[in-house]
Amino acid sequence: MGTMQLSRRGSVPPFQVMSILRRVGELRAEGRDVISLCAGEPSGGAAPAVNAAAAAVHAGGESLNYTPAAGLPELRAAIAGHYARWYSTAVDPREVVVTTGASGAFMLAFLAAFEAGDAVAIARPGYPAYRNILTALGLRVVEIPCGPETRYQPTPELLDAAKKEHGRLAGLILASPANPTGTMATRPELEALSAWCAANDARLISDEIYHGITYPEPGAADPLGVSAREFGTDAVVISSFSKFWGMPGWRVGWLLAPSELAEGIEALAGNVALCPPAAAQRAAVHAFDEEAYAFGAAQLEEFARTRAALLERLPELGWGEAAPADGAFYLYAQLGPALGAFPDASAWCSALLEEEGVALTPGSDFDGVHGGGAVRLSFAAGPEAVRRAVERILVFQERHAR
Amino acid sequence: MGTMQLSRRGSVPPFQVMSILRRVGELRAEGRDVISLCAGEPSGGAAPAVNAAAAAVHAGGESLNYTPAAGLPELRAAIAGHYARWYSTAVDPREVVVTTGASGAFMLAFLAAFEAGDAVAIARPGYPAYRNILTALGLRVVEIPCGPETRYQPTPELLDAAKKEHGRLAGLILASPANPTGTMATRPELEALSAWCAANDARLISDEIYHGITYPEPGAADPLGVSAREFGTDAVVISSFSKFWGMPGWRVGWLLAPSELAEGIEALAGNVALCPPAAAQRAAVHAFDEEAYAFGAAQLEEFARTRAALLERLPELGWGEAAPADGAFYLYAQLGPALGAFPDASAWCSALLEEEGVALTPGSDFDGVHGGGAVRLSFAAGPEAVRRAVERILVFQERHAR
Repeated sequence: MGTMQLSRRGSVPPFQVMSILRRVGELRAEGRDVISLCAGEPSGGAAPAVNAAAAAVHAGGESLNYTPAAGLPELRAAIAGHYARWYSTAVDPREVVVTTGASGAFMLAFLAAFEAGDAVAIARPGYPAYRNILTALGLRVVEIPCGPETRYQPTPELLDAAKKEHGRLAGLILASPANPTGTMATRPELEALSAWCAANDARLISDEIYHGITYPEPGAADPLGVSAREFGTDAVVISSFSKFWGMPGWRVGWLLAPSELAEGIEALAGNVALCPPAAAQRAAVHAFDEEAYAFGAAQLEEFARTRAALLERLPELGWGEAAPADGAFYLYAQLGPALGAFPDASAWCSALLEEEGVALTPGSDFDGVHGGGAVRLSFAAGPEAVRRAVERILVFQERHAR
Repeated sequence: MGTMQLSRRGSVPPFQVMSILRRVGELRAEGRDVISLCAGEPSGGAAPAVNAAAAAVHAGGESLNYTPAAGLPELRAAIAGHYARWYSTAVDPREVVVTTGASGAFMLAFLAAFEAGDAVAIARPGYPAYRNILTALGLRVVEIPCGPETRYQPTPELLDAAKKEHGRLAGLILASPANPTGTMATRPELEALSAWCAANDARLISDEIYHGITYPEPGAADPLGVSAREFGTDAVVISSFSKFWGMPGWRVGWLLAPSELAEGIEALAGNVALCPPAAAQRAAVHAFDEEAYAFGAAQLEEFARTRAALLERLPELGWGEAAPADGAFYLYAQLGPALGAFPDASAWCSALLEEEGVALTPGSDFDGVHGGGAVRLSFAAGPEAVRRAVERILVFQERHAR
């Protein structure tokens, strides 16, 4: 069996966050006190009504069968209603496909929208799973270098340049608020990117998983985020219950499917996944209760407090350039002088975890070119965890100061 | 946007079961009394200890974060222990990758084991999602025609013939007990297929999801099924909590990864899925409690009673050739004269559902060549549902008799 190896297509790098989470688990199993700021995991969990609904489903002991592949009709309807509430946009429940987290939505969207060999544009820095799923599916990833001058978001000019260099772009994956930088596209910016995709025959995949988690100035426009769905039905819009609703481990998300893809996506879903988790879907219907929106708003206030506290202490850390963190719950920053004698941020993060029990994510996961000296810190864990983590990081940096 | 269509790769047929389930849901929403025998959904649900554990997780209201990509360590250990119990085979927990149902395991296994363009053999009739996932991933599906003369299972001779016709086979997907036929490979047969794969540099993917659901003669060898893992670590072994443990809607399964694929599969999992559902994983640890095995055994007795009752009434239905249903909970049969004036079993099933509220699955889903006149009936719903369904089918057939 000597020639049977891991396939080239399957030889994607691990998503470092997941590798670090594994190490966090091992250290905790050894009794270590670890502060995990590596993953985007809101500390407050789900709204009480959602937890209660899930508990009731299981306490009843009924058998949990497959749901329809596109999800429970009542959940699809509730998600459609959410677009009326947040975006004043009428969405037909038939546009909604419930998925196994946003991850499940990416797989379905990429399979439905792109042929093998197609070039798909993503921002760099960006969520590494975009790149790695696309690669595994035989797509060509075109990274758009996005820096502070465009608030880490792609622009029509950057896309024109990419097209000139790489040929036709079959799609653009856009994240606003973005991971790892938290930056957002404004309404005119998103509209311009949407128009660019329409004019260039490129499918826009709009990852809106961090919507609702934003830190606008008082009176700012579109405080919840702007949905690509507001500009028409050509984009595949992707979101999830993992962030604003605090349900990462539940594995429920959704997509809005353009009509010409809807049937195909539902057929793919029935083959690839059968259905998203049944109990979680039933509970998620309650994520749209008034009380659950209020719970989400309270969590957001907590994120905002944590963010403010972190930004206040940032000068003390002595790091380099940091992205503005308009939304989401990440601080993405160059370590700058704090890198010390470590060869890169991966080594720095690894040492920090082993020595001080603080888990951050190295920037190389998000940016293979300029991320080597950067880190992403998730402040979703709350102010106390972040405060303690900063103390430990200061101790660590002091020890390794040259 | 006129040229932006569903991709060719994504243009897979729907898994009919999922389309029928959707129609079942619609009819029930209209107040119709529908007996659903289309999907493999055990009526008894999960063991009480599993339900209680899930209820407790949610009732506690704690936040449910991502688990490690390969699953909770305690669940991986419990699954490894299951191989000692059922197969007297020592499995290292590091071989175990917990997945989002067996569906999640197929995706990971196919991506890790095969390059785009590789030919992969599957039995016809067989589970349609194999074919459709492989197609979506750009693999060539080689169907091995399997009839009653080989109990609907492939043989080394059939594989030799397929290789002669189609060139190198990169893999074989084997299901024993099989879906839709329920037939099983004996120990010598599975060993011979395993040896064929080793000799021909083909990766064996052994789908063992129906293990434990078998109807052996008293004193028969290997009553629970034979695992490909018993012959070494070259095969990717796939299973799930959906069938023996009665947890289809929970979306938790697993695979055993050959060592040369293990790291790659874990990296793929962290990118493609992040992790399987967290609460379901914690509950699934209790699927290996003594009490849960006993619950499964009781469910099996119920399946056996239902199967016996169904087989007893089969002559009354006047159908054609039926597969032996050694295991799983499916009866796969040609309708024969009972097809009447319907053009095919799809039309027959559709009329049966609309007129009598009984959902079966047409054979074309499993066999595009000889399945047009066949149906699959899942008797997992229990004896009373099956008895009532048979009555309704008799009424339906009487009405449509020519």
